[in-house]
Amino acid sequence: MSTPNRGDARKERILEVALKTFADNGFRGASIAEIADRCGLSQPGLLHHFPSKAALLAGVLEYRDRLDAERLGTDEQPRGPLALHQLVRAVEHNTQVPGLVRLFTVVTAEAVAADHPAHDWAVARYRHLEAWITRALDAGIADGTIRPGIDAVAVARQIMAMMDGLQLQWLLDPENIDMATLFRTHIEELLARIAVAAAD
Amino acid sequence: MSTPNRGDARKERILEVALKTFADNGFRGASIAEIADRCGLSQPGLLHHFPSKAALLAGVLEYRDRLDAERLGTDEQPRGPLALHQLVRAVEHNTQVPGLVRLFTVVTAEAVAADHPAHDWAVARYRHLEAWITRALDAGIADGTIRPGIDAVAVARQIMAMMDGLQLQWLLDPENIDMATLFRTHIEELLARIAVAAAD
Repeated sequence: MSTPNRGDARKERILEVALKTFADNGFRGASIAEIADRCGLSQPGLLHHFPSKAALLAGVLEYRDRLDAERLGTDEQPRGPLALHQLVRAVEHNTQVPGLVRLFTVVTAEAVAADHPAHDWAVARYRHLEAWITRALDAGIADGTIRPGIDAVAVARQIMAMMDGLQLQWLLDPENIDMATLFRTHIEELLARIAVAAAD
Repeated sequence: MSTPNRGDARKERILEVALKTFADNGFRGASIAEIADRCGLSQPGLLHHFPSKAALLAGVLEYRDRLDAERLGTDEQPRGPLALHQLVRAVEHNTQVPGLVRLFTVVTAEAVAADHPAHDWAVARYRHLEAWITRALDAGIADGTIRPGIDAVAVARQIMAMMDGLQLQWLLDPENIDMATLFRTHIEELLARIAVAAAD
């Protein structure tokens, strides 16, 4: 990670506060005034960095994706079954951050409207994750841990759909829906079908 | 279907118009004024039947669920693999009604907030569909078309998650995401695991 200069540090502080505010109240429920107040800034001071609530949302989503990418690591991508186990751990981690999961779920659904400020972000995010999973499956085919002949792109899309759909049910009814276990068993059953040898 | 009286008929007309308006513009983008205008009613005339936009949304969602239930039929529930094939056909049908799918997707995601007007509807809707799928799987176990020993509730939740997650990807990127095929292949692979004999 590069060392931020003073302007970057202030921007990062704003993004941290905005992230928490959006996660607590959703995009619609959050106000620029509240975020500026929590940052110790005037509204014009905040709007100097981000000209609108939509721009601030876009900034938060990009910032959050960057943090996730740093956590996942970018140099060595896990291959084959290991990558799918990493997704299981990501879902387990998500059960600890319901506000953040809620932010992503609500904003992504709102973003199906082509004129939503997060539309392009959402489309790009799916393409990025799809490519990550597809590369992992292709690498698994290459190293003999995943059966050849599977449709890796289709499997990637189905895995992402399962993650999103379980998140939605869990957010609606967290007492009853064990998102982490439901996702883990789905991945285990998927691997029973597409993996050449058990990976764990 | 019971014969509606005059008041019911007017209410149904309002619901039809509101459904189309919400599907076109989303909940947030739709206005009571526009819906009243399209119904040929004054705003107070509309608000006599539904006291708020939220109440109108709740009415639309219940109305829509009732239409779906009538289409699915309530007397004879399909059993085992046939029920899952019926879900495949429902997803195929959904590709023809993107506005409606969008309404359900956006409203359900918004409804994860406990104070959202559609929260209880969303929770009840998942419980209802979960029960429908679970009953179908249990009936399949009873008549020998589904393997015993599966966790029917978990399978039901995973099927619903796949439907929702694929809808979201399809709405975001309809040119690239073939929701119907992705769901059908998921169900075929599921049946290869849990069905006793191929149903088709």
